[in-house]
Amino acid sequence: MSAPYPAGDGERPGHIMSGEMAEQPAMLRRILERGAPAVRETAERIAARNPRFVLLTARGTSDNAALYAKYLLEITLGLPCGLASMSTTTAYGAKPDLRDVLVITVSQSGGSPDLVASTKAAREAGAVTLAVTNNPDSPLAAVSEYHIDILAGPEKALPATKTYTASLLSLYLFVEGLRGGDGAAAGVLPDLAAEVLARKDEVRALASRYRFAERMVITSRGYGYPTAKEAALKLMETSYIPALSYSGADLLHGPLAMVDNISPVIAVVTDGRGGEALQPVLDRLRGRGADLFVVGPAAQVAAASAGFVLPTAGVAEEVQPVLEILPLQMLAYEVTIARGQDPDAPRALAKVTETR
Amino acid sequence: MSAPYPAGDGERPGHIMSGEMAEQPAMLRRILERGAPAVRETAERIAARNPRFVLLTARGTSDNAALYAKYLLEITLGLPCGLASMSTTTAYGAKPDLRDVLVITVSQSGGSPDLVASTKAAREAGAVTLAVTNNPDSPLAAVSEYHIDILAGPEKALPATKTYTASLLSLYLFVEGLRGGDGAAAGVLPDLAAEVLARKDEVRALASRYRFAERMVITSRGYGYPTAKEAALKLMETSYIPALSYSGADLLHGPLAMVDNISPVIAVVTDGRGGEALQPVLDRLRGRGADLFVVGPAAQVAAASAGFVLPTAGVAEEVQPVLEILPLQMLAYEVTIARGQDPDAPRALAKVTETR
Repeated sequence: MSAPYPAGDGERPGHIMSGEMAEQPAMLRRILERGAPAVRETAERIAARNPRFVLLTARGTSDNAALYAKYLLEITLGLPCGLASMSTTTAYGAKPDLRDVLVITVSQSGGSPDLVASTKAAREAGAVTLAVTNNPDSPLAAVSEYHIDILAGPEKALPATKTYTASLLSLYLFVEGLRGGDGAAAGVLPDLAAEVLARKDEVRALASRYRFAERMVITSRGYGYPTAKEAALKLMETSYIPALSYSGADLLHGPLAMVDNISPVIAVVTDGRGGEALQPVLDRLRGRGADLFVVGPAAQVAAASAGFVLPTAGVAEEVQPVLEILPLQMLAYEVTIARGQDPDAPRALAKVTETR
Repeated sequence: MSAPYPAGDGERPGHIMSGEMAEQPAMLRRILERGAPAVRETAERIAARNPRFVLLTARGTSDNAALYAKYLLEITLGLPCGLASMSTTTAYGAKPDLRDVLVITVSQSGGSPDLVASTKAAREAGAVTLAVTNNPDSPLAAVSEYHIDILAGPEKALPATKTYTASLLSLYLFVEGLRGGDGAAAGVLPDLAAEVLARKDEVRALASRYRFAERMVITSRGYGYPTAKEAALKLMETSYIPALSYSGADLLHGPLAMVDNISPVIAVVTDGRGGEALQPVLDRLRGRGADLFVVGPAAQVAAASAGFVLPTAGVAEEVQPVLEILPLQMLAYEVTIARGQDPDAPRALAKVTETR
């Protein structure tokens, strides 16, 4: 076993991103130990308001964390959810009736002007507003009625890594709090995250597989689908490989035509019902001779062209996404290094994106 | 001016798709003349039920039509909406509380088992259910409380074209009916659609531009965003070009790193607030030297590398999507022909996709 990503290893390209990836086990522990009580209290106060519907607002990596929360809220609480189309309020000035609606805005910086504006508008329209950010002093935290601090510490690399897993875990604890659960299923995550991050050599070998890939398809279903979307975003913003993500069902509705032996497929297979629902899609892909790489339990990896075995035994399906994304963050990092680029400095990206 | 796509021109590859594209002006007229009264009546009955929230359920092309309806419902009616994550009910057995919720399921065939199952579950959970299909005898129409027939006539080509525009127009008339409007803004669409479809030579020249493209980015904002998503799907399922679609704001949050002179960008610029909100994104793209092709009003096309001028003068922004998609359907068709492939027979696609 090689050492995990060293934090702060000097001037090597990508040292900021790799350092932040390496912080994740300790950060997850910090959230469980120091953050959880405040999250639970916020959840109890919001549960007392009896929201009947939830709208989630976010962009980029945070949007993928919001999608994870949507699955949790719908499956474990039966709360109907929507992802907000922000331009309806910011560009078109829509004035929706948001009584009984909980609006959750996820943003690591808490600084995007459009998120601040749409959250302010939602609060004025009667919504219960909750901001989930990495900065309690941010404008977004200020305009929201409630705030959850994801406690990730400063994130300096442009590709978000630790703020993604911090958002996932914080949102999990929040939804658990809403339903009166104790969130105990998350207790295994810090140690397992450290185990996964230590398997650097495996991922480096995998990266050589995609060194010359011109495109990539990433698929999943259920709780793993946000992981597929986040993995695609991470690969695109670091290595510039066009990575297309689809839910397994959507893949069969069109884009499958594009999958052939020049479009490698990565499937994120959760150990649970989402993974089971993905089986027919995996069978179709295998039947077409697709190059199929599986991130998931050992039996699924054995049936694929190759894979990364995730420790899922005894891990509840709803918290597996916190682990699933780790080898894919590592893959984005390693492919980018292999291509001679710097993961810390993608072209064109700014840390706070000022869309209005 | 060359002739529009001829219907039924023998054995030429793509003649089924081109024939169905050519039917669109007459079909739009049929919907306005014969379909509108029934749509209005259904809308009035549903308005009397006072739904407070809307969940939209669909896959593939129909999912893009559903996204268009989401913008309409949020902007013109202030009704909060969500796109359903179907696996939460079909794979995880979630039992959401759907009182006061209108569930709209869009499916050209009305035959996908997962849509039938999730609509049935929604009705049992208290939702008002509306199916929007091209088949009043379909299982989906049978399980839904209300049904709108999009009157597109049989669609035989695997890539959906006329059922997309038929769904858009039917959904527009439905939302107009909900709000007590008369839908008069749609009256200009049949003639303008015929004008656009007649400009085949322009699109053929454009297709040569993308003959060797290895990937493509399509962006828009507001009402044009569903067009960007549908154009990407159409290009992928016919020509197999990996086409990535992003809302303009999301493009700035990561994927912009991937845009350079080897990733041509198509921007769908509505004449209205969505187009205005897209301006900063277009400026960033031009600043990066991106190859920018604009589908939109003349002034926007003039400021881009190239473009297709849409007739938007006097056309309300909310009905422009019915016209915007036409040159992009034509582009998918022409690029596929130029690549020596058959648009009628994409690899791997079945007309009714039996995901469960």
